[in-house]
Amino acid sequence: MKKHQITIKDIAQKLNISPSTVSRALKDHPDINFRTKEAVKEIAKKYNYVPNRIAQGLLLDKSNIIGVIIPEIVHHFFSSVISGIENVAHENGFNVMLCQSQESYEIEVKNVDTLLSSHIDGMLISVTKETTDYRHLQNIQEMGIPMAFFDRIIEEVETDRIIVDDFGGGYNATKHLIDQGCKKIAHFHGPLHLLIGHNRYNGFIRAMNENNIPLHNDFIVFCDQYEKAQAEAKKLLESKNPPDAFFCVNDATAIGVLKTVKKMGFNIPGEVAVAGFTNSYISLISDPEVTTVDQKGYELGQEAAKLIIKRILNSEDLPEKPITKILDTELLIRESSLRKK
Amino acid sequence: MKKHQITIKDIAQKLNISPSTVSRALKDHPDINFRTKEAVKEIAKKYNYVPNRIAQGLLLDKSNIIGVIIPEIVHHFFSSVISGIENVAHENGFNVMLCQSQESYEIEVKNVDTLLSSHIDGMLISVTKETTDYRHLQNIQEMGIPMAFFDRIIEEVETDRIIVDDFGGGYNATKHLIDQGCKKIAHFHGPLHLLIGHNRYNGFIRAMNENNIPLHNDFIVFCDQYEKAQAEAKKLLESKNPPDAFFCVNDATAIGVLKTVKKMGFNIPGEVAVAGFTNSYISLISDPEVTTVDQKGYELGQEAAKLIIKRILNSEDLPEKPITKILDTELLIRESSLRKK
Repeated sequence: MKKHQITIKDIAQKLNISPSTVSRALKDHPDINFRTKEAVKEIAKKYNYVPNRIAQGLLLDKSNIIGVIIPEIVHHFFSSVISGIENVAHENGFNVMLCQSQESYEIEVKNVDTLLSSHIDGMLISVTKETTDYRHLQNIQEMGIPMAFFDRIIEEVETDRIIVDDFGGGYNATKHLIDQGCKKIAHFHGPLHLLIGHNRYNGFIRAMNENNIPLHNDFIVFCDQYEKAQAEAKKLLESKNPPDAFFCVNDATAIGVLKTVKKMGFNIPGEVAVAGFTNSYISLISDPEVTTVDQKGYELGQEAAKLIIKRILNSEDLPEKPITKILDTELLIRESSLRKK
Repeated sequence: MKKHQITIKDIAQKLNISPSTVSRALKDHPDINFRTKEAVKEIAKKYNYVPNRIAQGLLLDKSNIIGVIIPEIVHHFFSSVISGIENVAHENGFNVMLCQSQESYEIEVKNVDTLLSSHIDGMLISVTKETTDYRHLQNIQEMGIPMAFFDRIIEEVETDRIIVDDFGGGYNATKHLIDQGCKKIAHFHGPLHLLIGHNRYNGFIRAMNENNIPLHNDFIVFCDQYEKAQAEAKKLLESKNPPDAFFCVNDATAIGVLKTVKKMGFNIPGEVAVAGFTNSYISLISDPEVTTVDQKGYELGQEAAKLIIKRILNSEDLPEKPITKILDTELLIRESSLRKK
């Protein structure tokens, strides 16, 4: 192959239209008007445009591959999401190719390249905590490849989104602790600049306010890890006026708290009740079992796959504009918080 | 593109050589002699051979993608392996594309197709429990694409292998329980037709025999799940002559046993000691923490990536014949079995 071939971007520049319009014109997309198509094809012919590997894949036929990028597969939540995506994909004749960004923006950009070079038909992404530049994501859209965010989204990129009702989950867990008679409820929260941590936190605050439970500043702690949770719980429980419940941003943190509560000899849930978030495997294996908010990772994955497949097949079920789907969570009440009545 | 093009297999048939020889001849591989190359190229030219997408990728340039197939990413062990693979891959300028077989032979076959169509440079596979037909794997080799098995291997396919010393791990865990003074040791084992379960079991038997500890048939139980472990442990502990220790094939099983032991009021580890296998996250989060055999998933992944990259780059560090690398495990002694002396 020769170098310095004319690209989709070059054609776009010459005609002063977007690359995605060029791409779709070359694919005879019905949304592009006849004149634009003619103009694009004329230039493509004149400059001997050779579609690159990716465009080739798109022009020739569908690859039937859905690309998925997730931050970390070690999280039970994400592996559930993947199973949900895969099962719907397989039912519909698609296969799934997975890349892990390891919470690194740099790797995420590479992953996008890798998946695009495999001429995927559509892309599902949950972005890293450090993704603040979006060009690699806009690039996908410009190539005319359907893309959707799941769980972690970028507000600035307009595309389909499938997310979980974190606010409702935080609200329900806190309301449950209040209903059990808890009055001094601590919240161990995640990073508040991330939508997830922020929404769970807001759900907690709302439930407390609605029920006129006073908020203690000391009881609201940034802590989302198993080890740190043990130390932070110890501090609070040794204080003069200890909490009688903990709502934690995830299950690992809740289990760290439980460990300390047990070690210090408090009765669970009579003296101290504990609730987590995620419904990961560890919440069931824990002793006692942990009350938690089921994030429904599997269903989230199914919905994400259904949505992207509809976009790939240009289904008329969907509006042309991006949609946002918010999935309900479910509170699972277990031994760590259920006071016998 | 026209249909009914001549393929690598057709050329191979005409010359009565293997498809992988044809593939390598077309790539000017140094292992193929001059005459063969000439013959292959003549036929390719005569019949207007057009390399397919995959071959094209291989002929044109490296994709710098390593394909990985694993049975289930929900296992902490496999997600550690993947991190190990990815880190070495990224350091060496490769990216990793992952497919999950969900323990299904059918999906594994599709995964192989998907990854091959993405013109990967090399393939790392841990096969499903039900893989007994190997054609899809032999196909990879015939295409001249380097392949290695990790953790779960197929004895019949001759290729590089990176595995864990399951026998040594089973032996060391059992020996440790004996050293702690345990004399009535139960073993909850996995499916014995799989090499992993079989080797851990054999390690247990060897340690018992070497130390002249009598084997009780009732104490050797096929049980590798959290829920079942609770029921099976209860049966044994309620018997007239209960075990004073359990060595379990994985951590989830060990934690199921622990739950029952605690519920029945036995002192741990004084009356009943427990050990697992894997060193998964749950073994640390458990209360008490579980003695376990570290399978070193991360290191396994690193070794697998190093090996496949060397094969991709045709490194002279390696013998031409397939090699098998066996990684040592490490016994991590924790609260569930360490009797204070």
